[in-house]
Formats: sequence, structure tokens, C-alpha cells
Amino acid sequence: MKTRAAVALGAGKPLEVMEVNLEGPKAFEVLVEIKATGICHTDEFTLSGADPEGLFPAILGHEGAGVVVEVGPGVTSLKPGDHVIPLYTPECRQCEYCLNPKTNLCQAIRSTQGAGVMPDGSSRFTTLDGDPILHYMGTSTFSNYTVVPEIALAKIREDAPFDKVCYIGCGVTTGIGAVINTAKVEIGSKAIVFGLGGIGLNVLQGLRLAGADMIVGVDLNNSKKEMAERFGMTHFVNPSEVEGDLVAYLVDLTKGGADYTFDATGNVNVMRTALEASHKGWGESIIIGVAPAGAEISTRPFQLVTGRNWRGTAFGGARGRTDVPKIVDWYMDGKIEIDPMITHTMPLEDINKGFDLMHAGESIRSVVLY
Amino acid sequence: MKTRAAVALGAGKPLEVMEVNLEGPKAFEVLVEIKATGICHTDEFTLSGADPEGLFPAILGHEGAGVVVEVGPGVTSLKPGDHVIPLYTPECRQCEYCLNPKTNLCQAIRSTQGAGVMPDGSSRFTTLDGDPILHYMGTSTFSNYTVVPEIALAKIREDAPFDKVCYIGCGVTTGIGAVINTAKVEIGSKAIVFGLGGIGLNVLQGLRLAGADMIVGVDLNNSKKEMAERFGMTHFVNPSEVEGDLVAYLVDLTKGGADYTFDATGNVNVMRTALEASHKGWGESIIIGVAPAGAEISTRPFQLVTGRNWRGTAFGGARGRTDVPKIVDWYMDGKIEIDPMITHTMPLEDINKGFDLMHAGESIRSVVLY
Repeated sequence: MKTRAAVALGAGKPLEVMEVNLEGPKAFEVLVEIKATGICHTDEFTLSGADPEGLFPAILGHEGAGVVVEVGPGVTSLKPGDHVIPLYTPECRQCEYCLNPKTNLCQAIRSTQGAGVMPDGSSRFTTLDGDPILHYMGTSTFSNYTVVPEIALAKIREDAPFDKVCYIGCGVTTGIGAVINTAKVEIGSKAIVFGLGGIGLNVLQGLRLAGADMIVGVDLNNSKKEMAERFGMTHFVNPSEVEGDLVAYLVDLTKGGADYTFDATGNVNVMRTALEASHKGWGESIIIGVAPAGAEISTRPFQLVTGRNWRGTAFGGARGRTDVPKIVDWYMDGKIEIDPMITHTMPLEDINKGFDLMHAGESIRSVVLY
Repeated sequence: MKTRAAVALGAGKPLEVMEVNLEGPKAFEVLVEIKATGICHTDEFTLSGADPEGLFPAILGHEGAGVVVEVGPGVTSLKPGDHVIPLYTPECRQCEYCLNPKTNLCQAIRSTQGAGVMPDGSSRFTTLDGDPILHYMGTSTFSNYTVVPEIALAKIREDAPFDKVCYIGCGVTTGIGAVINTAKVEIGSKAIVFGLGGIGLNVLQGLRLAGADMIVGVDLNNSKKEMAERFGMTHFVNPSEVEGDLVAYLVDLTKGGADYTFDATGNVNVMRTALEASHKGWGESIIIGVAPAGAEISTRPFQLVTGRNWRGTAFGGARGRTDVPKIVDWYMDGKIEIDPMITHTMPLEDINKGFDLMHAGESIRSVVLY
């Protein structure tokens, strides 16, 4: 079949919206009509060329929601008409990782996904001239129709609006999951969130959901304060307005350091600040942000020997097929908010405007509506 | 009263064995006759001048065992004749830290202990001329008699031999506790221990006690192999004999990385290797060793984002008054071994020989017998 897609032809180039060929689903694969997709910093990271593992040409996009159109041989958990969210972190429920309760990093299709192909080693996308186009993160939601492995699709309730719950495909789950699955924040905790963008806001509402008492937000941009308060922030700190050492300021503010700190900036210096602002004896610092290639974190080992714990999280520690439907329920039940974070919507033709808004810092999340 | 003690008069100088004055115990303090004390690398670290917080003149020593001689006003948990192990990490059971199950770092007397004095701000030791001599780590076990706060004494069974169980005052508890309290190693785990000295051997026997399946020891000195095997090591790796990248070698040996890795070297480069040799998704790396002043650990944050966990431990995460008597029981019951690690004993007069043996790498542990 043919489908419209925004194709990344090369690093640093705008996406080109065009018709492409899409082969139908092979065994254990599913054809999905994408109804909406968010534009995430990870798409931008790859498109910019900063991602050393980025491959071109490819169809980016990993934060979508849609409807199953057709299932390939062997697919048993989904049928046409099912509403789904594609998962860049699949959940096969069979591999060594899925069977270990300490991780969500299913490795079943890791190598082919990283190579931009389906598990059989080939791509379902080609140009109209027949040249191959690669998949991206196993999802390629910047195509109106896409083929996704069955194990990389979460089945969700049918009354959930695609244009909102697509965000659960990455940002919402990453932020809330970092709190709930990775840190396992307890009621009454004190926490600090560094970076109040699309991920940071979701960390905030995760902390509120978990019953944290003190939720400090740190951002260089004062305009982030109002929205952050809406999502649960109790104290705002702008480092450029702090005299003296930021760590000392935050330790003082939290009376000894935060029980949990979260980096949602991707800046390795901020990651160090986050660790050192966590409480002696039991503070945990969670890295969510993706750092530039080659960047390294560092600290004195004394920080760890005196009881701080340095960790990271990917996709919020969520097992997508199991956890994503629950987060959709939380949204539908009003336990979490998404709508105010979707600041812009646009048709596929205008997808590059979504990247422009991101660069300009004007959007929290832009969503493409097919 | 007067007591014999080995006094550290200044950084880099040998200890001087002399008579000193010792004031009796004040409120909530206990006079202890030390029967035996180990000589630990931390004493050496301070004596050498490398410890930026080291103070002189002081009476070092923090790995002792002895008998209560006299108790000060208000002491309720101990009486003359009780056998005790002094604790450089006290356990007041009242402070914010003692009441938080995530940490063992009691802060009740932290500031005075760090300043080399008793909780009332003064020292009990003076020279025969009346000049002050400082305490060290709250224990000063290089004195035949010493005064220790009640909360810094673990009461132990009376049939335990002082010349062996003194080692539980630091090295044994630090190594075994890192496994049991900090890492909480599960039966069947794979583990790597870097550094097979006095701490590393105790990590090994902690792993054996915890039921680990694969216990890899890493040391540059092949002569460590035999003793390490006695304490539970199943595989030995000498990095100088490994061709290519050590991390890759260890990941291959453990089929994906170790569930738990332990640094018992204090070398920040080894700490990085230990982290990166732990398993993607769930590996935990525990820093035990004390690094040189100013040294920093570093890694790519990707190592943490993909599920590795970087932690540290002090005194093996043990709450001394509660846990040390249990470890003494384990020794008396034959669950753990100590005797082969006590390679040398000597009278107080020869204490500097103990430091010489440590420098020469000839001892695992030297114990001074009073």
C-alpha cells in the first residue's frame, strides 16, 4: 500500500512529507493507522545528526497512537480495530530481561530495532522508486500507516482520545514512570526536578500522584513556573537567581537534601548537581535526560559512600504492554493531566513547524494529527 | 588514670608508644580496656597525611575489642565486665538517620567525632605534661584503655576471642555488610569483587554466605588467588593478563555482566570498570574503597540510563549495636571465617611493624595484642 509520511532524508535536513510504499505486516507484525503522534526531543536528537546511532533515510516518530488495520500471521493479542500505542521499548514477556522484575529493557528485538529494520532484518518502507527507507525505534509514527511488531504495541481503551494519549507513548510514561517505577517514591518524600520541560512536568505530576510533600522545580526560565505549579510543583528555584552554590542552596531548602532528585535536562553538570543535592544516607538521583554523545558524569565517590544512589531510567521503567494501558486509565480517570501540555497541533504537512516550535522553546508538546 | 597508647604525633611520622593520661568516663560514656585491635588502611590513610580531615596529635585505631571497666552517669545498656566492640559508626537509635531504615549513618555525634573529641567537646586523653591528644573515629583503639560513647559500643558474647573478633569492628563488617546490607545479594547471583585485600576477602565470604553462584575476584597480584578461593572466589582474573578491554572480558565471563560488582580498591578507574562490568538493566555496583582526596569517578550517563545502579557503602551498611553481635555469632558458629586473615600479631610496642607489613603487602591483617 501507499501511505503519507514525513521522511528524514539526512541529518540536519527538514523532514520531507511524501508518499511512500508500505509493505503489509509479516509474521508477528501489525499494520497500524497512526491517528496522532507527538514530536519528541529524541526525534530532534536523531534528526539533528547528534545521535551517533542515527540512520538515514528513515521515518522518525515514536510517540503515537492509532488503530490496528491488519495483523500478520501468528499475531494473537491484537485484532483489526484495536486501539494501540506503539512502544519503542517492547515487552515480549519471554526474554531474560522481561523475566527479571528489576528491568523493563526487553531485548527481544533490540538489534534489528537499532538497525532500523523489522525483526526479520528488512524494512517495510520504500520510496515510490523502490529505494529502502528505514524504520526508527521500531515505531515510525511520522507515517500515517506503519508496521510494528506485536510485542511493541500496547492495547488501550477505545474511548481514549488519540491526540492526547499519544503522549503516553513517550513523555508522560517516561516522567511519571521515573517516579513510580524507578524511584518508587514514597508518600511524604521531598523531591527536586531539574528541567521543567515536557518530561519534567510529567515527573512533577508523578510526584504529586505518589504523594510527595515537597516538590521543588529547578529551571533557568521563570516562565516555566506557572505551568509547573499546575502539575504539582511546590517550590521553584531559578539557578541564575541563586547566590552562591546551588547544591548548598537546595540542601538547605530541603533541610538536608531531597529524598529523590530527577534530571530531565540531559546536561551532565546538572546530573552532578542533582546527585549532590540528594540526601546523605538515602538520597536517590535518577537520570532521565539523554546526554550529548561522549559527555560524562562525574562526582567524588564520597557522595556515594555516604549513601547516595545514582541511577537512570529509560521509558520510565515501564513495561509498555502492561503499564501503558494503566496510565491511559489514569488519564481518563483524571488522576493525571495531559491536555495542558499539548500546546500545539498540526497536520503532517506542517510537521517541521513542530520542530521549529521546539527549537524556539515555545511548545511543551506539538502533536501531529493525521 | 594512666594508659599505654601509640600516639600519632604528626602526619607521616611513626606512631610513638607512650604513657598518656586518660580521664574517666563522663555522662553516657564508657571506659573500655582494649584487648586487641586491628591495623586498618584507614588508620594508615590518616597517619600518612593523605586524609584532608586528619588531625594530630591523636590516638588512632578503630578496629578493637575489649571489656567494659567503668560506665559514666546515665549509661544503661552496659556494665563493667561486658565484652564490647567499639563502633566508629555509632547507633543511637534516636536520630533521623537511625530512624530511617535506608541508612546506617547515625549522625548523633558526627561533628564531635570528626573533630577528635567526645560529645561534650573535650578529649579524655592528655600527655603526661597535660597537653591535649585527640580521639580518632570515636574509638582510639591504639590505646590500652579508651573512653567511648555508650552508643558507639556493641555488646558481644563473652566467649568470642578478642584477637579475632576485633576485625569485626571494621573490615569483616564492611565487606560482608556491603553484600548483605547494601547490595542485598540474592541466592544465585553473579558477582565481581575488585581488590582481594582485607576488605575484598570479606566481600567474597559475604557473597558465599548470600549464596552467590559465580564469584569473580579481580586483582593484579596472582598470589592473592589461593586465599581468595578459600573465602569463596570461583573465578580469578588478573587484569594484567587480560588481552583487550577488561570490561568486555568480564561481561563475557559473566555472560552479560555481573548482577553485583564491588570495588574494594579505592581506585576511581577501577570503580568505573566495576560499574561498567555490571549487567545492563539491573547491575548494581557498590563502592567500598576510599579514594584519594579530590579523586572523582566518572562514566557515560548511558550506563545508568540503561539500568545500572551506582552506590556506595560505609561500615557495610551495618547498624553496629544491632548487627555486630550477629556477625560475632556467625563467626562463633562457623558461618564465616576470620582466623586465616589475621596473618600477624604483635604487642603494642611493635605497632609500627604492622604498618610496615601493610606497606609491603605482606599482611592481610595485623592485630595488636595488649
